[in-house]
Amino acid sequence: NYAKIDTARVRRTGYPEVIYGAGKTAEQISGIIKVMKGHQKAILATRVEQDKATAVLQELPSLKYDAVSQTLTTVDEKTASVGNIAIVTAGTSDIRIAEEAAVTAEIFGNHVTRIYDVGVAGIHRLFAKIDVIRQANVVIVIAGMEGALPSVVGGLVDHPVIAVPTSVGYGSNLGGMTPLLTMLNSCAAGISVVNIDNGFGAAYNASMINRLIDKGHI
Amino acid sequence: NYAKIDTARVRRTGYPEVIYGAGKTAEQISGIIKVMKGHQKAILATRVEQDKATAVLQELPSLKYDAVSQTLTTVDEKTASVGNIAIVTAGTSDIRIAEEAAVTAEIFGNHVTRIYDVGVAGIHRLFAKIDVIRQANVVIVIAGMEGALPSVVGGLVDHPVIAVPTSVGYGSNLGGMTPLLTMLNSCAAGISVVNIDNGFGAAYNASMINRLIDKGHI
Amino acid sequence: NYAKIDTARVRRTGYPEVIYGAGKTAEQISGIIKVMKGHQKAILATRVEQDKATAVLQELPSLKYDAVSQTLTTVDEKTASVGNIAIVTAGTSDIRIAEEAAVTAEIFGNHVTRIYDVGVAGIHRLFAKIDVIRQANVVIVIAGMEGALPSVVGGLVDHPVIAVPTSVGYGSNLGGMTPLLTMLNSCAAGISVVNIDNGFGAAYNASMINRLIDKGHI
Amino acid sequence: NYAKIDTARVRRTGYPEVIYGAGKTAEQISGIIKVMKGHQKAILATRVEQDKATAVLQELPSLKYDAVSQTLTTVDEKTASVGNIAIVTAGTSDIRIAEEAAVTAEIFGNHVTRIYDVGVAGIHRLFAKIDVIRQANVVIVIAGMEGALPSVVGGLVDHPVIAVPTSVGYGSNLGGMTPLLTMLNSCAAGISVVNIDNGFGAAYNASMINRLIDKGHI
Amino acid sequence: NYAKIDTARVRRTGYPEVIYGAGKTAEQISGIIKVMKGHQKAILATRVEQDKATAVLQELPSLKYDAVSQTLTTVDEKTASVGNIAIVTAGTSDIRIAEEAAVTAEIFGNHVTRIYDVGVAGIHRLFAKIDVIRQANVVIVIAGMEGALPSVVGGLVDHPVIAVPTSVGYGSNLGGMTPLLTMLNSCAAGISVVNIDNGFGAAYNASMINRLIDKGHI
Amino acid sequence: NYAKIDTARVRRTGYPEVIYGAGKTAEQISGIIKVMKGHQKAILATRVEQDKATAVLQELPSLKYDAVSQTLTTVDEKTASVGNIAIVTAGTSDIRIAEEAAVTAEIFGNHVTRIYDVGVAGIHRLFAKIDVIRQANVVIVIAGMEGALPSVVGGLVDHPVIAVPTSVGYGSNLGGMTPLLTMLNSCAAGISVVNIDNGFGAAYNASMINRLIDKGHI
Amino acid sequence: NYAKIDTARVRRTGYPEVIYGAGKTAEQISGIIKVMKGHQKAILATRVEQDKATAVLQELPSLKYDAVSQTLTTVDEKTASVGNIAIVTAGTSDIRIAEEAAVTAEIFGNHVTRIYDVGVAGIHRLFAKIDVIRQANVVIVIAGMEGALPSVVGGLVDHPVIAVPTSVGYGSNLGGMTPLLTMLNSCAAGISVVNIDNGFGAAYNASMINRLIDKGHI
Amino acid sequence: NYAKIDTARVRRTGYPEVIYGAGKTAEQISGIIKVMKGHQKAILATRVEQDKATAVLQELPSLKYDAVSQTLTTVDEKTASVGNIAIVTAGTSDIRIAEEAAVTAEIFGNHVTRIYDVGVAGIHRLFAKIDVIRQANVVIVIAGMEGALPSVVGGLVDHPVIAVPTSVGYGSNLGGMTPLLTMLNSCAAGISVVNIDNGFGAAYNASMINRLIDKGHI
Ligand SMILES: Nc1ncnc2c1ncn2[C@@H]1O[C@H](COP(=O)(O)O)[C@@H](O)[C@H]1O
Ligand SMILES: Nc1ncnc2c1ncn2[C@@H]1O[C@H](COP(=O)(O)O)[C@@H](O)[C@H]1O
Ligand SMILES: Nc1ncnc2c1ncn2[C@@H]1O[C@H](COP(=O)(O)O)[C@@H](O)[C@H]1O
Ligand SMILES: Nc1ncnc2c1ncn2[C@@H]1O[C@H](COP(=O)(O)O)[C@@H](O)[C@H]1O
Ligand SMILES: [Mg+2]
Ligand SMILES: [Mg+2]
Ligand SMILES: [Mg+2]
Ligand SMILES: [Mg+2]
Ligand SMILES: [Mg+2]
Ligand SMILES: [Mg+2]
Ligand SMILES: [Mg+2]
Ligand SMILES: [Mg+2]
Repeated sequence: NYAKIDTARVRRTGYPEVIYGAGKTAEQISGIIKVMKGHQKAILATRVEQDKATAVLQELPSLKYDAVSQTLTTVDEKTASVGNIAIVTAGTSDIRIAEEAAVTAEIFGNHVTRIYDVGVAGIHRLFAKIDVIRQANVVIVIAGMEGALPSVVGGLVDHPVIAVPTSVGYGSNLGGMTPLLTMLNSCAAGISVVNIDNGFGAAYNASMINRLIDKGHI
Repeated sequence: NYAKIDTARVRRTGYPEVIYGAGKTAEQISGIIKVMKGHQKAILATRVEQDKATAVLQELPSLKYDAVSQTLTTVDEKTASVGNIAIVTAGTSDIRIAEEAAVTAEIFGNHVTRIYDVGVAGIHRLFAKIDVIRQANVVIVIAGMEGALPSVVGGLVDHPVIAVPTSVGYGSNLGGMTPLLTMLNSCAAGISVVNIDNGFGAAYNASMINRLIDKGHI
Repeated sequence: NYAKIDTARVRRTGYPEVIYGAGKTAEQISGIIKVMKGHQKAILATRVEQDKATAVLQELPSLKYDAVSQTLTTVDEKTASVGNIAIVTAGTSDIRIAEEAAVTAEIFGNHVTRIYDVGVAGIHRLFAKIDVIRQANVVIVIAGMEGALPSVVGGLVDHPVIAVPTSVGYGSNLGGMTPLLTMLNSCAAGISVVNIDNGFGAAYNASMINRLIDKGHI
Repeated sequence: NYAKIDTARVRRTGYPEVIYGAGKTAEQISGIIKVMKGHQKAILATRVEQDKATAVLQELPSLKYDAVSQTLTTVDEKTASVGNIAIVTAGTSDIRIAEEAAVTAEIFGNHVTRIYDVGVAGIHRLFAKIDVIRQANVVIVIAGMEGALPSVVGGLVDHPVIAVPTSVGYGSNLGGMTPLLTMLNSCAAGISVVNIDNGFGAAYNASMINRLIDKGHI
Repeated sequence: NYAKIDTARVRRTGYPEVIYGAGKTAEQISGIIKVMKGHQKAILATRVEQDKATAVLQELPSLKYDAVSQTLTTVDEKTASVGNIAIVTAGTSDIRIAEEAAVTAEIFGNHVTRIYDVGVAGIHRLFAKIDVIRQANVVIVIAGMEGALPSVVGGLVDHPVIAVPTSVGYGSNLGGMTPLLTMLNSCAAGISVVNIDNGFGAAYNASMINRLIDKGHI
Repeated sequence: NYAKIDTARVRRTGYPEVIYGAGKTAEQISGIIKVMKGHQKAILATRVEQDKATAVLQELPSLKYDAVSQTLTTVDEKTASVGNIAIVTAGTSDIRIAEEAAVTAEIFGNHVTRIYDVGVAGIHRLFAKIDVIRQANVVIVIAGMEGALPSVVGGLVDHPVIAVPTSVGYGSNLGGMTPLLTMLNSCAAGISVVNIDNGFGAAYNASMINRLIDKGHI
Repeated sequence: NYAKIDTARVRRTGYPEVIYGAGKTAEQISGIIKVMKGHQKAILATRVEQDKATAVLQELPSLKYDAVSQTLTTVDEKTASVGNIAIVTAGTSDIRIAEEAAVTAEIFGNHVTRIYDVGVAGIHRLFAKIDVIRQANVVIVIAGMEGALPSVVGGLVDHPVIAVPTSVGYGSNLGGMTPLLTMLNSCAAGISVVNIDNGFGAAYNASMINRLIDKGHI
Repeated sequence: NYAKIDTARVRRTGYPEVIYGAGKTAEQISGIIKVMKGHQKAILATRVEQDKATAVLQELPSLKYDAVSQTLTTVDEKTASVGNIAIVTAGTSDIRIAEEAAVTAEIFGNHVTRIYDVGVAGIHRLFAKIDVIRQANVVIVIAGMEGALPSVVGGLVDHPVIAVPTSVGYGSNLGGMTPLLTMLNSCAAGISVVNIDNGFGAAYNASMINRLIDKGHI
């Protein structure tokens, strides 16, 4: 009775419900997963801290926990991977958000290419990887501090860029509000933005685009 | 010498340069269009006020001005339209931004379906149109005031939703910051956001997705 | 001498003083309750953390502590319940605020109907409960994240809606400022708003309205 | 096609649609009123500036324009007035918002008692009127500057107080954000808040409460 | 070498240096006090937490620590007290700031009258004390939450009111920014404001005024 | 009926009501002055723009208008001046606020010493005047831009400093919020602050202090 | 008496006073220039609008007005130019600020190299000019919108970069606060920042560095 | 693979990569240092807390840790020191940031002169040191609270001033946003600003200027 699990969702939107672990107890997470297991093959819980994960794994030992992305997932047979999503970070500290995006994209059946720590302060690092990035259908660009990387990438690729600001920074960074504002004001067209640290949301969007391409839908 | 027109852009990103008319004189707009005409078929200038437009049209009478969207465009033979973009507004006052998006999407060769004034305060208006919305590849949802509409639409469709906050509102609306924050914090997955009143940016993104679908790219 | 207990209040406003436990010691809370017991039947202390509650209960074992709502209450014979207040939450994490509201409403003698986890991302959950909600005199709608639920409910019912933003969310949620602004800018009429996480205040308002209805107008 | 007039609203919520005049042309306002006239007896348009009103009145001479509240209304036979709403302002400059509230409340069939310019800097002015205020079912308190008046009134009456911050003030008043925050943080219980300058919204809420009392609804 | 103690201050401004303990180690506080002792009779250190105080007292056992106001002071023979400062708080939680002010005022030789917990939600508590407040030369009014009390006091007394906002509150209180803004926008004349929680600064100002009165200075 | 003129005020606080002209019509200002004339000798209206003043002067030709300070005053026989207030500005653009303060202080019977354009960027200008400033009972320091001057003055004088931030500046000045915050955070003790551009409020405070000194009140 | 012209400044800092024209009348500007002419060869007035300039030029016809940078300058024999400052803009609309910087740098005797409209959305434009930029001692980078250009330039040159945010942009640009925050949070080292639109301040800093280089270290 | 160490940087900008320790594990810091050791003589890691430093020193015992500045550095033979940088703080609590700047400047081969605790509240302390400050090529001024010191220093020296706001303060200091805004709005020319607490960035800038002077570059 603490949650109305949206089991209609997979039918309504084509995507299974995902558990947002923050602010839920280990018991609540386990309970919800058990109900979900009857309705959907792939399970994904995000924002699950180490100690909660340990407790959930004792109940549900078939799940897999990844400490960097703080995700709990099923390790079922792979869904046939389609499409390709490039996940690009500006710095090392942005990787935890990048991995939340990567794990999400993979469990929804997408190929993921990781290009980490290529921020604008040393822009040659980005150019060294730009051909790989250009081969992806969608590019997720993740940056904290001043958040300038999506603008540069957006000017170099002709596919959609989904920008993710992170809370990495200090002082007038304001917990990620600065890169968020930067990304929203980008003068490069083709960039859309999700909430601070929302790697999940970026991957969900990218995955939707990949699926549309796959279906060749009109 | 007041502008380095990015004529390489059409080759680099597949999209022609677009003129952002705000803060440019009629002379600058005319001058830039004349240079562009040699490199690209479709011309689009946004945020062009009536009086500037009148001046530009005297120089370049083959262009077309639309007063609602404040755009100047070429009226060349239509590019074969592909894909379908639904453009949805919450209120009547959001239409000027919706038309900026619509004109942009159309000049880039997309089908556009307009569904206006279906905000959440009278949600039956949205349900009456939901089947039409579901048939689009991408849905652009435009709202001012509290900006709640994208969350509702996002929960009802399984295609990407691009949310555009508008500066329509008063008091604690803070010039559109309120619907912007609302959209960024949406608990519906599959929503990404562009800047306040940025109809152009939303359409550019949607158009990129449509083109990817069209190419069936992997 | 650390508090001037407003014992005149019950006479002046018809409502007894309530103890706001945050920032008070267990000794102060116990001390105030002892003074109050002489003047009013129902005792309510909100924002009392577990450890403080344990200390108070050793002094005053006849009280009851509820850990979800963080309230201490008397368990006297029930006042005849009048009216009906629907308490609706968007998510699971909003329940602690909802229970603060519910406990407050109940100790002031109101019927409470709980409808939890029916947020706009899966709006069918709301529609499944809308008839129950419509039967209440007053509806309290509680939401964090983007706070869109009150706008939708406000468009569907013809009774007052009291909206409570919660601090549930992250990034640009800004500790609940985002849903607060959303609710204040709602384009649905009939919505008024209280402070972030102020379940108590919402219930107090709703209770006042119920009492007026009960008395049938002055 | 610029507006989906919510003619179902009167049936759904018991209240007719109201026209929010800001950002609409005189032609749009006239057009909407003509459609509405077939579905509802009472017409109310708010935020209509003098020059737009003059244009509308030429089309629809049976309407009445009030320059202080900037409202256009029908002057049909009065609906039997029920209930009583006290509208209290802190200063002289808040009166335009108070009159928006008053006109709204009256067209929805409520008695209104006006008590203006009784702000906290000269609190004896409030006490001189407190008995009149206490006789109302609901009290609307309107204040700019620091917005302290609702807290004082809230501590003196035992009926719901709806607080309306206004944009009256300068400097760190921040266009009404200061009184808005003051009202949301009131330590007096029984206060709920609407957006800055939203006299309409306050009256709509108060009217709903009066109607409930009138019906003696449980 | 970590501090240039302003021993010229007592000569320049007539007031001794005061130690701001926050962010200093116990060793630094002890070291500064030892240097000061040669130049000034009264020692005052504010914002000294319990554990630091314990360490300082082992070095300098003749000092006195007060845990509520978090001050360390000398307990030398009293300076002849002059003038009278009323210190008024809205709530119980504001007392720690009030005591910082009271201890500061007393060590600088002023009479202090304490009137605590008389906030506007129960304004009769203020009226019961207003004659005592009117007898003071200067009134320090301390409030968190919405910070409305100084406006009311300012309208009732004809002496300077120094307003101190506190960080007591939650949600849109924004760590005391709300009462700070309230006080700065007060429509009662005769109020000036100091920083959030700055009891010391308010008392320093009040003390300066008292000394001027005492000297009958022109 | 648009204003409850606080004629009790002169008895209650010893100070006559002052008219805040912003947002009032010339008719309202004239009307209020006529009522006041029966109860108080000195009339002061602030924030009266040139055109309104011209209209008022036609009705009440005995008043005097000062275009720099935007004040209307009576030119009755002088009240015996007591005390001395130094009014110091950082720049040339701050003078209009300084004159609002000076006119207010003078009409309430204080001596005023003006020291203008001595901001911190050329601090020798301040030192050249410091002895004159030190002779005043109270110092009003007025600054826009970064608002650093009160901190420097506060460290050099041993009398109360009342700081007035102004809206002079651009960019991240934020309409005066920057100097306001600067002044509130001053590390010099003895400074209190009023609202942005509130020259009137500063003078009112300073005048109260002077009167207390004059009375030698304890 | 409206200005204490800092004629000591040229001796104290080696730089003449500059007139900040905003908020000064044409008469005040003329008056100040006449006084200055006795003390310093080069005259510079910034932020002088066209109409004020016309009035000043009638009084002082030997001055030169530049409408883009809104500056009034003397056209005396050139001071021997030393050093080299590159002034780089992201867009066309930033040029007015760039020219304020250029005129300032030139009147203080520096070589200026202008590189305009090379923003990050088309980064090849920057690379085409990078060798010219690298030859300057100091680089001033001016950008509005998201303000990303200084970060990229900072990673490519080994000389100081002075970043100037501009108020060019809309929506969540917040009048230039967004590029200001971006620049302050740059992850490229070697960047310092001045106020929004402060071309003058950037040039003043760059000029100081050039002079130090010219003198070859103290 | 967690970091793309920018080993090209020393060639590209003349400065070695520096490790920003915040948010990196001890293992990551050690790993990066080991790679760097092959490419650059001087190693600098900032924001390394005591416990991480201890772990790194066990791996790399030839490094030196400084607890005040939280830096890890190599203690190689000194590079010939050139230039002179004055580092000035307003208070004692700003020293940790000043030492981050000092250690950075020294490892890059600059002379450093430290002048601490000379804030504007006791401005004689600054004047006692002004001659020493004037002898430096560049002056770094570090201040929290209201951040007024750079404005005063900027008016007294004719060399570049780099201002560093710190997060020292409370209440409306807003974590250093107040001194940041103060410094950006300084009316003294010749001041540029870096992020809150960014001692490293200020020193990096100052060092670049010194190197230019040393090279006598044109
Ligand atoms: N890391 C995440 N960030 C944002 N939203 C998430 C995240 N993980 C899951 N969600 C969303 O949260 C919803 C579940 O919320 P709840 O009902 O509170 O568990 C899912 O349907 C997802 O849309
Ligand atoms: N002054 C007002 N302030 C806020 N909302 C209003 C106001 N006047 C009308 N409304 C609301 O705005 C809705 C109409 O909006 P629209 O469709 O844009 O005309 C009405 O149903 C009312 O709920
Ligand atoms: N609680 C307080 N709040 C604000 N300022 C204080 C406080 N206590 C002392 N001060 C001021 O801080 C100065 C000393 O600062 P410091 O040199 O950092 O010890 C004193 O001269 C006082 O003016
Ligand atoms: N465009 C500008 N932006 C910022 N500061 C300026 C500008 N032009 C001049 N100034 C500064 O303003 C000072 C003069 O201010 P004022 O005394 O008000 O004329 C000069 O000494 C300059 O340091
Ligand atoms: Mg890196
Ligand atoms: Mg509508
Ligand atoms: Mg849920
Ligand atoms: Mg009044
Ligand atoms: Mg209390
Ligand atoms: Mg000046
Ligand atoms: Mg351009
Ligand atoms: Mg100190």
